[in-house]
Amino acid sequence: MSKELTTRAADYSQWYNDLVIKGGLADYSAVRGCMVIKPYGYALWENMRDQLDKMFKETGHVNAYFPLFIPKSFLSKEAAHVEGFAKECAVVTHYRLMNDPNGKGIVVDPDAKLEEELIVRPTSETIIWNTYKDWIQSYRDLPLLINQWANVVRWEMRTRLFLRTAEFLWQEGHTAHATKEEAVEETEKMLDVYASFVEEYMAVPVIKGVKTANERFAGAEDTYCIEALMQDGKALQAGTSHFLGQNFAKAFDVQFLNKENKLEYVWATSWGVSTRLIGALIMAHSDDQGLVMPPKIAPLQVVIVPIYKGEESKAVIDEKANGIMKDLKTLGISVKYDNSDHARPGWKFAEYELKGVPVRIALGLRDIENNVVEVARRDTKEKVQLSITGISDAVKNILDDIQQNMYNRALAFRNENIRSANSWDEFVQLLDEKGGFVSAHWDGTGETEDKIKEQTKATIRCIPLGNPAEDGVCVLTGKPSKQRVLFARAY
Amino acid sequence: MSKELTTRAADYSQWYNDLVIKGGLADYSAVRGCMVIKPYGYALWENMRDQLDKMFKETGHVNAYFPLFIPKSFLSKEAAHVEGFAKECAVVTHYRLMNDPNGKGIVVDPDAKLEEELIVRPTSETIIWNTYKDWIQSYRDLPLLINQWANVVRWEMRTRLFLRTAEFLWQEGHTAHATKEEAVEETEKMLDVYASFVEEYMAVPVIKGVKTANERFAGAEDTYCIEALMQDGKALQAGTSHFLGQNFAKAFDVQFLNKENKLEYVWATSWGVSTRLIGALIMAHSDDQGLVMPPKIAPLQVVIVPIYKGEESKAVIDEKANGIMKDLKTLGISVKYDNSDHARPGWKFAEYELKGVPVRIALGLRDIENNVVEVARRDTKEKVQLSITGISDAVKNILDDIQQNMYNRALAFRNENIRSANSWDEFVQLLDEKGGFVSAHWDGTGETEDKIKEQTKATIRCIPLGNPAEDGVCVLTGKPSKQRVLFARAY
Repeated sequence: MSKELTTRAADYSQWYNDLVIKGGLADYSAVRGCMVIKPYGYALWENMRDQLDKMFKETGHVNAYFPLFIPKSFLSKEAAHVEGFAKECAVVTHYRLMNDPNGKGIVVDPDAKLEEELIVRPTSETIIWNTYKDWIQSYRDLPLLINQWANVVRWEMRTRLFLRTAEFLWQEGHTAHATKEEAVEETEKMLDVYASFVEEYMAVPVIKGVKTANERFAGAEDTYCIEALMQDGKALQAGTSHFLGQNFAKAFDVQFLNKENKLEYVWATSWGVSTRLIGALIMAHSDDQGLVMPPKIAPLQVVIVPIYKGEESKAVIDEKANGIMKDLKTLGISVKYDNSDHARPGWKFAEYELKGVPVRIALGLRDIENNVVEVARRDTKEKVQLSITGISDAVKNILDDIQQNMYNRALAFRNENIRSANSWDEFVQLLDEKGGFVSAHWDGTGETEDKIKEQTKATIRCIPLGNPAEDGVCVLTGKPSKQRVLFARAY
Repeated sequence: MSKELTTRAADYSQWYNDLVIKGGLADYSAVRGCMVIKPYGYALWENMRDQLDKMFKETGHVNAYFPLFIPKSFLSKEAAHVEGFAKECAVVTHYRLMNDPNGKGIVVDPDAKLEEELIVRPTSETIIWNTYKDWIQSYRDLPLLINQWANVVRWEMRTRLFLRTAEFLWQEGHTAHATKEEAVEETEKMLDVYASFVEEYMAVPVIKGVKTANERFAGAEDTYCIEALMQDGKALQAGTSHFLGQNFAKAFDVQFLNKENKLEYVWATSWGVSTRLIGALIMAHSDDQGLVMPPKIAPLQVVIVPIYKGEESKAVIDEKANGIMKDLKTLGISVKYDNSDHARPGWKFAEYELKGVPVRIALGLRDIENNVVEVARRDTKEKVQLSITGISDAVKNILDDIQQNMYNRALAFRNENIRSANSWDEFVQLLDEKGGFVSAHWDGTGETEDKIKEQTKATIRCIPLGNPAEDGVCVLTGKPSKQRVLFARAY
């Protein structure tokens, strides 16, 4: 079974699809826009989810679960939210099927029409704040620091596996606070949690920033984000954290008695990351041979492949391999010994390269005589001979080194691809010829932002946190500007 | 804030609702039939899920994720399945909303009608077997041992928190095998996994058995189940494992090339447990003071409550409590020190009793002078004074003892409540006066089963595995019977 991969140079988006499908991460389904997450892809998501969940709990959050369905009327309670979210949704109108009276399978029972339609949640602010109304009475009930792991549905017209699908998996944090200061602090804290996770575990460097009003979450006062850069020079929003002000508290009438016994509206945040992160991971690190998994979240960290002729040598290699495997597991390293005999070593090498397993150990009879193994690392494709004595510590060090190297490489690429533009021509030329982030002055209006997007397909990815003040003029309008912002074409 | 609980004797089902809601496990939502799982209830579910997931992985299974939606036509592909499942479902008919032209909120966009309606999954056999068709070609692709953690929706008319809700959380295993023997072995293996989990972790004894044809899963050749007994004498089906034969393989045309290079249909199983288990847990163990959590899956195993007067003594107690807490955590015991000052010790005692925390430690200034603490266990309500020296080991032993004691107590109750009936009058009298399981002869027909259900509301819970052969006559019809089966009224 040969698995030919398209190269990045030949067709970047076909390369991406090949990696997702042939690498065993996900598949298309019979339902338009919905994906199947295959076992290898789901194991990756589990590792990401478990680490994020740990970080959420360490910062004082607990998990809960809210209904999949939202009554239609809830969506229109927050004025800005309805504009942003109430449109492309899956709508449940009936609750029963019946046998077709004409004998052709089953049909919707017309008598089972819901009085009010239910929307499959595109995000849960409305149903959650409707619930918080019952949970919050006094300042003693605050802060409420709740997260939910869930599936959500947004009816996207053009879908791409992981990057944009009708259904996807995510987490959504929804917190309630007594003061504005505390809510803003929470918003920023969770942005930091996301940035730490993406950089330390996914080995993808990010820029922390704030969205412009145009790009803000529908219903937020401020949207913070982390932006990553993909190998084709396009940006990808990897996570968002929203300061919601009192908008949802007012829409759902959630008030609390403060210490002075006066009623006040509650302050809110929400924040989320999704299976989209898997798309970011793929496009940040992979190459023309396949996926490259960062060791800290790789579904499988090490594979051992035996090189043998005949059953006798296989038995000897099996025994040695099992010993190495046991030592690696003692160090908490996940390892698989692939001694299946329905494929040759060369086929296995290509297969684990495609799947991005960080370290491959090849083991033959002569190696054992010499007390060595061949260790290949996926990130650099370097091979070295290492002594079997102490191999598990050596592999552990290599895994750490791969993790660091992947981050450094992605960081260098990202930093090389932030360029300043000081005129419209330069701005357009950089976008067309180099891609990446373009740092440029902008006059601060939504109109200009829209025009730039129309003409170049580039959007303002963010106003970086701690952005230095600098006097200049907008690249499009020439109007005065006090700071540069980061533009890019984006996923 | 006093939380008055209804007693079991006064109103069993109100007692159950009180425990779920006042114990902080779940709440009703704005969406008919859908519950909100609150943080304490979700933490319990996480512990159950994590343990089950570990057991699934130890038996060779991997997780994946399939779409929430199922095309309507899929449901009618397997003849028996459609009868059992295609009826009470949430049906998605549209994919877009729009602003009401009359300015009243939002309405369903009539132009965005789906060509084929989508059903929110009530169970996933159909969408999964439609996918397996692409994944299975050769015997080398088998067995396929996949599990999914997901939400599902069944439009129930009468709902009860955890026991029967429109949306619930569950896992569904879907495996594919080359031979019938292997599929039957898998079905039985997963029943054993469920039984081990429910008995060892939830401390609820179960009877393993097989369902009659009437009670079988729609589309199965055989449904295995575990049945538990609640304190009110009603049975509760705690998990099912289905041998599906080749029914779904034939419906979705899933064939594989066997070792002799001939095409054969694949053999299937599916198995699931859900958040319903939480209902079983509550009704098996709890009492009139509240929940009683088995230590192995309790969200919180130990709570320490300080008894102090004045800030000075509080500081001394805080220090000692923090030391004890640290020691307990070293042993992997979850512990909370509740030194909040907005409630008195008595209120806290009642609150943690309501929540079923297995061990409560009370700590006062005089205790510290005497180097002792008061330890109360939730299951028996016994209190003992124990030396602070070595307290963590002592608490660990008490937790183990509580787990064992809860199981033993539930087992004794269950065994006392299995009674034999040898005539119709005795059968009806036992059901009405004693409840529990009634072991009786039955003539083996679905008609008789239906009549017994009509007249007594009792169903055949299962034919126990390893059931002894015994000649007798059916309690209803007097026709000959070769074995007794277990009847009960059930949730």
